Amino acid sequence: MTDELPENITRAIESTAPGNASSDIDVTLAQQNPEEIALLLESLPLPPRLEIWANISKEKRLDILLVMRNDPRQPLLENMSVAELDELFEGIDAEDLIELEESLPVPMLERAVQIMDERQRDLFAHALQYDAKLVGHWIDDDVLVLPVNARVRDAIRFLRRQLPVYTDTIFLTDRTGKFSSAVKVSRVFPELDHVSLAELAEEGLHALVATDVAAAAALKLQSSGYTALPVTDENGKLLGRLNIKVACELVNENFESKFMAPAGLDENEDLFAPVMKSSKQRAIWLGINLLTAFLASWFIGLFDATIEQVVALAVLMPVVASMGGIAGSQTLTLIIRGLALRQISKGNIKALLFKELGVGGVNGLLWAVVIGAVVLIWFTSPILSLIIALAILVNTVAAAIAGVVIPVALEKLKLDPALAGSVVLTTVTDIVGFVTFLGLGTLLLI
Amino acid sequence: MTDELPENITRAIESTAPGNASSDIDVTLAQQNPEEIALLLESLPLPPRLEIWANISKEKRLDILLVMRNDPRQPLLENMSVAELDELFEGIDAEDLIELEESLPVPMLERAVQIMDERQRDLFAHALQYDAKLVGHWIDDDVLVLPVNARVRDAIRFLRRQLPVYTDTIFLTDRTGKFSSAVKVSRVFPELDHVSLAELAEEGLHALVATDVAAAAALKLQSSGYTALPVTDENGKLLGRLNIKVACELVNENFESKFMAPAGLDENEDLFAPVMKSSKQRAIWLGINLLTAFLASWFIGLFDATIEQVVALAVLMPVVASMGGIAGSQTLTLIIRGLALRQISKGNIKALLFKELGVGGVNGLLWAVVIGAVVLIWFTSPILSLIIALAILVNTVAAAIAGVVIPVALEKLKLDPALAGSVVLTTVTDIVGFVTFLGLGTLLLI
Repeated sequence: MTDELPENITRAIESTAPGNASSDIDVTLAQQNPEEIALLLESLPLPPRLEIWANISKEKRLDILLVMRNDPRQPLLENMSVAELDELFEGIDAEDLIELEESLPVPMLERAVQIMDERQRDLFAHALQYDAKLVGHWIDDDVLVLPVNARVRDAIRFLRRQLPVYTDTIFLTDRTGKFSSAVKVSRVFPELDHVSLAELAEEGLHALVATDVAAAAALKLQSSGYTALPVTDENGKLLGRLNIKVACELVNENFESKFMAPAGLDENEDLFAPVMKSSKQRAIWLGINLLTAFLASWFIGLFDATIEQVVALAVLMPVVASMGGIAGSQTLTLIIRGLALRQISKGNIKALLFKELGVGGVNGLLWAVVIGAVVLIWFTSPILSLIIALAILVNTVAAAIAGVVIPVALEKLKLDPALAGSVVLTTVTDIVGFVTFLGLGTLLLI
Repeated sequence: MTDELPENITRAIESTAPGNASSDIDVTLAQQNPEEIALLLESLPLPPRLEIWANISKEKRLDILLVMRNDPRQPLLENMSVAELDELFEGIDAEDLIELEESLPVPMLERAVQIMDERQRDLFAHALQYDAKLVGHWIDDDVLVLPVNARVRDAIRFLRRQLPVYTDTIFLTDRTGKFSSAVKVSRVFPELDHVSLAELAEEGLHALVATDVAAAAALKLQSSGYTALPVTDENGKLLGRLNIKVACELVNENFESKFMAPAGLDENEDLFAPVMKSSKQRAIWLGINLLTAFLASWFIGLFDATIEQVVALAVLMPVVASMGGIAGSQTLTLIIRGLALRQISKGNIKALLFKELGVGGVNGLLWAVVIGAVVLIWFTSPILSLIIALAILVNTVAAAIAGVVIPVALEKLKLDPALAGSVVLTTVTDIVGFVTFLGLGTLLLI
């Protein structure tokens, strides 16, 4: 598993394992870029993480913190002295402080804001007006802006002086500061000096609005062919831009949270969070799942007299529950991705339900026959075989319906389907499975 | 759920629902960009998808296909006539054909290669030498290259003629074509004509190697601060570049596959795949899971005499299995993410196992007490309460170990932990849970 890890980082991590000397880490660190050091720090238990952090040069610290996740960087920030923090925050810009904001205790954040220069303080205050889910929270002001009547010669004079990172277009605004259009930097150079920039404007480039959903806007920027898009307020006034690095962070964070959510985890979860902190966070999720498990048990308990007479039913219960759960999770996963990609709307939900019912029906029939046959051989009871076949068919079809309906309903209720979907689904498939199976058993075997 | 979908697309989708007129779709489509049309097509069942596709202007088709996923675009390609395909492939470049390659039947692909100009054909053949998992498969040749002894005046002359999209650096090579260094475009303009470019070279910019893992290299590019990175062969010869748009596609595809894998699904899965095709794909996964479910049943069957005497054991089985499964999946998810982010190596795996054992122990104890108490009240049997408490504790600790060991072992065996991890884990927690619970029941209750 160490194949893809830079060798010197592996060595550095290994040298922090109990019993090893940590002497050559400093040398190693001096040669690393911030991303690699951040990766190293996130990969370490807290004591060596703090030890290494203390040895990292002051100039590198901010860049490293900026690429770390919230949870693993929090202890680093909390263990810094006021003097160190003052040094860290000196000359910090609004964009960077926004990134650190969530990991900073309020007094530290206030101190950072105090140290900032006025312009950055304004930008920071402005970003905070927007929720972290919205584009406005994530903009920077590294924009090249010219009036809409500017000419190529103005642009070239401008470009020779400055070309901020991720700048591939110059934004044109009208006299009131409203965004009008954008011109590609690459289109400016080959033109004659007196050509009007407005004539060179990009046709397909539309500004983002500060109140747009950040993750969706970030995806749009990624596929736009540009490295930054202008961001305006709701009246069209140019506020700044969203750049592609921030867009990648937003998209990746969103994907990561969708991957972690089904286990009730947060995308900021620290690999080496303190045991008690981790236990507490996970306990909540275990508690919620326990309620649904007890609910399933209660339904089984309704049939205890039947189980006492036909123990084979108890033996086969996991098969019914498992097949329903897996079939349901397949549909659920497809629908959650569809919702995230905005593929699903009122117009196609019915067609989608029919398709999933079709798939559930086909696989329900197939596996009902297979499982029925296995049970017939195992328990030599044709009725038990029929019962489990019917239960599998019913549960697979129910799972298809639940897999479509549950995530769509959760989304409507503004709950994250990636988080709550699988718990609710498993509850449904467990109960439908157990009740059908044990219910049919009671009717036909007793 | 339609909130985030562009309104005109929602309207277009709705108008294709059975019973509606599809008259105003063409007007709507003419105004959309390729990404939005691709989204619309992916959101439609096959018949309306083909119908709309037929109405899309020929010039837009290639751009739309390029942003669609493999499975949903395949039927579009398969239903095109030879004449239409010839038109589609006219002037196609290697990079685009690489993107379409997987969706194209071999004769079509061969025809496309035939139509290509020679230079693009060479590039295409070169890309195919590398597996799709490697950087070399995904490079383009939109590079600005100058000899390492070139000066600012050469660069400016060059830049005024051309500035390909995503170009923020000029690559410098030595006489043998080896990559030497890169200079930021933005650093060139403010300098004097005679300054040597090598003096302005970026310090932290390192070339990617064509045999690097593509997804990891793409993440590196995203956080590098550049919009493209040079790609060399293993001897350092410059082959081309990886640009940030391709990098975003690679990263997003990788995340998507990690999200879909636990349900046994592929990231290319078509929302509206034909029922039989979908059923077949999913059946395999259901079959694998069925084997593990029968295995669990077989273990339960070993204790059938016990269950016959104490039915409460059967009633409570789902609680034991569920708690182990959820606790295990929490650890598993954290470790799979850690492996994907390259956070985990030989150096920290032991510390990680101890931490997860700690969390498993704490939550095992907590929920053993809670569940023991509930069972005591429900069944008024102190021994049953003790048995389930012990089983919960054992299973939660076993789940922590399995959650760390299974994904690491799968990764070593070159199997995707995101795909196989949860099946293997559930098998372990089910069996450990059932055997401990029913085994203790047999020892203490019979």
